[in-house]
Amino acid sequence: MLDLNAMGQRARRAARALSLASTAQKNAALEALASALTERASDVLAANAIDMERARAAGTTASLLDRMLLTEARLAAIAADVRKVAQLDDPVGEQFDASVLPNGLRVHRRRVPLGVVGVIYEARPNVTVDIAALCLKSGNAAILRGGKEIMHSCAALTEIIRDALLAADLPADAMQVIDDPDRPLVEQLLRLDAYVDVIIPRGGAALHTFCREKATIPVITGGIGVCHVYVDSAADMAKVVPIVRNAKVQRPSVCNALDTVLVHRSVAHEALAAIARDLLPLHVELRADEESLAILQTAGLAGEHVVPAQASDFGTEFMALILSTRVVDGLEEALDHIARFGDHSDAIITEDRAAADQFVAAVDSAAVFVNASTRFNDGGQLGLGAEIAVSTQKLHVRGPMALRELTTYKWVVEGDGQIRP
Amino acid sequence: MLDLNAMGQRARRAARALSLASTAQKNAALEALASALTERASDVLAANAIDMERARAAGTTASLLDRMLLTEARLAAIAADVRKVAQLDDPVGEQFDASVLPNGLRVHRRRVPLGVVGVIYEARPNVTVDIAALCLKSGNAAILRGGKEIMHSCAALTEIIRDALLAADLPADAMQVIDDPDRPLVEQLLRLDAYVDVIIPRGGAALHTFCREKATIPVITGGIGVCHVYVDSAADMAKVVPIVRNAKVQRPSVCNALDTVLVHRSVAHEALAAIARDLLPLHVELRADEESLAILQTAGLAGEHVVPAQASDFGTEFMALILSTRVVDGLEEALDHIARFGDHSDAIITEDRAAADQFVAAVDSAAVFVNASTRFNDGGQLGLGAEIAVSTQKLHVRGPMALRELTTYKWVVEGDGQIRP
Repeated sequence: MLDLNAMGQRARRAARALSLASTAQKNAALEALASALTERASDVLAANAIDMERARAAGTTASLLDRMLLTEARLAAIAADVRKVAQLDDPVGEQFDASVLPNGLRVHRRRVPLGVVGVIYEARPNVTVDIAALCLKSGNAAILRGGKEIMHSCAALTEIIRDALLAADLPADAMQVIDDPDRPLVEQLLRLDAYVDVIIPRGGAALHTFCREKATIPVITGGIGVCHVYVDSAADMAKVVPIVRNAKVQRPSVCNALDTVLVHRSVAHEALAAIARDLLPLHVELRADEESLAILQTAGLAGEHVVPAQASDFGTEFMALILSTRVVDGLEEALDHIARFGDHSDAIITEDRAAADQFVAAVDSAAVFVNASTRFNDGGQLGLGAEIAVSTQKLHVRGPMALRELTTYKWVVEGDGQIRP
Repeated sequence: MLDLNAMGQRARRAARALSLASTAQKNAALEALASALTERASDVLAANAIDMERARAAGTTASLLDRMLLTEARLAAIAADVRKVAQLDDPVGEQFDASVLPNGLRVHRRRVPLGVVGVIYEARPNVTVDIAALCLKSGNAAILRGGKEIMHSCAALTEIIRDALLAADLPADAMQVIDDPDRPLVEQLLRLDAYVDVIIPRGGAALHTFCREKATIPVITGGIGVCHVYVDSAADMAKVVPIVRNAKVQRPSVCNALDTVLVHRSVAHEALAAIARDLLPLHVELRADEESLAILQTAGLAGEHVVPAQASDFGTEFMALILSTRVVDGLEEALDHIARFGDHSDAIITEDRAAADQFVAAVDSAAVFVNASTRFNDGGQLGLGAEIAVSTQKLHVRGPMALRELTTYKWVVEGDGQIRP
């Protein structure tokens, strides 16, 4: 069995070197990685073929097989993403909150890498490279543990990543993979607090709960959430359908996709009828509370894809072409509903500035939107260039976790012999 | 037994109201609290007397009894600290990283309270008020659990705190205390992730380890650390003794007090002799490595308070008038030593700019000092006005945790109907 303690020690040592690497050196490693992904594609595809064959033999579903599959085109896309990361600003070394204290001490906070990041993910080999690129650029070492279904793919990719580090005169041990499917190794990683500074799980709710339960290291969880759009009495109806459609239909399997529409009673008829006319032909199932169901029936829109909502249809992340709808008394009731079920991405559609301000102030979610689709809660869309995860917890990072969020800071205090009185 | 789940629900509801309170309203509650600490002193002192009597009967040590004791003067000092918190800037609502994206979306991040803070502390009743004041000002609800030795004092103080909240039209449930000494309640608090956003333990290493092991909620640990001063070959000798004395002697029982001096070989004789001549009369015990012991003996300074260092004397937080000393080859060896044992407060004494820069870049501790005492790693000293803890972990906050560090942020995205392409 792998010696995780030794891996941790090596990662810690490598992290120290990586934290001092120049931006140019880190970018050189990223460029070497991007090139090798194309040049050594056949090695990776051969390893991936082994994973695919085993998965097929084990009766893996078509959608999971597709997520596992690497092709030359996919590797080229991954390489392009690596080059994009090379172009992003390096957050390490940024100084902020600089001041000179009355006693003459010159103080600032300086951004430094987190150190060693442990990432646990599922059967998506591309995540190996995504994470390595972001960790490398932000000066962090990483210990990766991909799903056991993609062990061979991960090992082949990690070999390329380690060679790219060496090519830039950086320590290969900055990127290590746990290429042993033994499950207790995951628990060991979660307790490696002597060497690992943060755990980032990328997967479903069960993985997140498992990490929170078992880890003695801080865990950043996210990527899961129930998203709401509230259609206010002062909504511009021309904005309602495009936003709801975009948020629900464009990519229903992701965490910032819409789950529930709340509609102010005064505009419920118009809004719900418009939404239903737009979404039903797109194969969206509507799960309507009693009042919205009655409205849809009155509007002649009650077909087999319009069903009564159960209590559990509120507060559920559907990840599918399903939308729950509810009529509310007004903004206060919408806020209560979102306070109960939301924490990820929630939007109001309104032309009333006061209502928008109240919504923005009161909704305590990672991202709050006014007249825009919830799908914008994404590192690339919000101008951060990339993301390793979308956090829904409060500590350290909320929403997209990009390069800056992969750093911490230290205090730097410079004096001329000052002592504390 | 207390129903922690119900407490959590009440705290969450109160947190929602508190997050929307104005600065004036929060300051009014702080002022009411400060006044009541004086006006209702007799209630608090009566409760404290019960705790003191039981502790004395149980044979509690004098130093612990002193930490437990409240007096009119101490209550007045606590009230003064509460008024200081009222004067600090309110971080809630601050906006940063504002931008307009190419698609016209107006984006910013906005500071909001963390939500519900769980604090576990030991037999120091004043901590109850310190924490309540900082949480209140930063818009956070709190669930407090003080040491069982001070249950009555905590309960009396919490009653005053809750009345002050009500006086300012804020929900009393924003501050709740677990006034039941039952130990399993602590474990329940650590697993109350449905309602509590962060756990802050204030106590010794055993408490911190317990919290990390048991919590399913993010824990902010700190307040423990081995601090170093490295005397470089280019040190100004006139700065060495004052800084070492201040860092070691001024308050040896706190986390930013000095534990180990590392001395460059080229100045070892002069520096160690000067340090020993200064500290030995102040009853500091020196635990010297072989080379520094020989130097001290040569200088005629080897008395009963100069002893050979054991391996365990490096990497130990002494919390007492003990200092370990070691001669090093140079900066690199000092950096290796600090990388192995340091993470809290580490200083270099040098007039060599390049050496100082290298030290600052390479030392990965919460605070790094050049020509200044490690004792400045403190919220008050670094200009933050106050602190709830000094963090040595990487996530969210490093060094002093003050008002701003008791907040998180949310993304606010405002548009005119934008959808994701």
